[in-house]
Amino acid sequence: MLRSEVRQAQQRAAAMFAEAGITLAPEEEAGIEVAGFGLGQLETQGLELVTYVNTDRYCAKELVLFPRQTCPEHIHPPINGEPGKMETFRCRWGKVFLYVEGEPSKNISAIVPLGSSPYYTVFHEVELNPGEQYTIAPGTRHWFQGGNEGAIVSEFSSTSRDEYDIFTDPAIQRMPVITEDEA
Amino acid sequence: MLRSEVRQAQQRAAAMFAEAGITLAPEEEAGIEVAGFGLGQLETQGLELVTYVNTDRYCAKELVLFPRQTCPEHIHPPINGEPGKMETFRCRWGKVFLYVEGEPSKNISAIVPLGSSPYYTVFHEVELNPGEQYTIAPGTRHWFQGGNEGAIVSEFSSTSRDEYDIFTDPAIQRMPVITEDEA
Repeated sequence: MLRSEVRQAQQRAAAMFAEAGITLAPEEEAGIEVAGFGLGQLETQGLELVTYVNTDRYCAKELVLFPRQTCPEHIHPPINGEPGKMETFRCRWGKVFLYVEGEPSKNISAIVPLGSSPYYTVFHEVELNPGEQYTIAPGTRHWFQGGNEGAIVSEFSSTSRDEYDIFTDPAIQRMPVITEDEA
Repeated sequence: MLRSEVRQAQQRAAAMFAEAGITLAPEEEAGIEVAGFGLGQLETQGLELVTYVNTDRYCAKELVLFPRQTCPEHIHPPINGEPGKMETFRCRWGKVFLYVEGEPSKNISAIVPLGSSPYYTVFHEVELNPGEQYTIAPGTRHWFQGGNEGAIVSEFSSTSRDEYDIFTDPAIQRMPVITEDEA
């Protein structure tokens, strides 16, 4: 991902935080993580996040989804004998459609990213509006998409080790690689 | 505490959440916990809280402090060989003055609750404004007070077991006892 693309996404996420009335420290705003998953289609498959705290006991993040932006399907594996990451998603602003393992919903509200349908396999829909939350049990495959205005979601969880996440799409690289723009 | 006093404090806290743009589910709003600590002076020593999630791995709450309301000094002890609760306080709205063990600050901004000064013994001040946060290490004595407009504080932590908290004031009962108003 180009540095300019990262900066643009950071500014867009910062504007959404401001609209939602969520205050970030200046260094948090400057350091908003932009995850494009190595797919080169940030607008449709990507995620913006601020990690407030990540200790060996718990983690808290704020996630931003642009309108209809999707965080691709993945699972958090057990690590060193500890069960996989457990996560509670709480919608703060906008709307998010979350999909987990279980009985597939008849008509889902999300749009599966074009060309990636083989990598979306779970369709039990949970719609979250502000003030609503859902806890994803460890070892549950899941993906999520912002609604028409996007979403801001608080994630409360056990310790986060993003580098171990297993994505259904084998082309995905979770950890961002940023390339400087040419002069 | 009388049921009417609890209801009044719940309504006041709900109004502060609304002003801060923090949306609660109706059942969360109806169930706001009002902790008076058995002292009968809720306005000066008390705390209002919503527990979003509390699992065996992590916990997240939203804390409300009315203007100059103080959560009395306490410590989270180790339980069953696990270190005491670790907490990150993130100010979302208003201002909070937090006091922890360490070098006492020369002039503190909080007002120690009248008549309770023997039970306030740590004075290292941390001022938190919206977007600022502080992580309290396990086994650290601490107390905190809302500023002139009060405060809303997100608490991210390890598992919460409030009933084991040890307060410096031996008169304190952490778990609320609610008495119905007389007809």
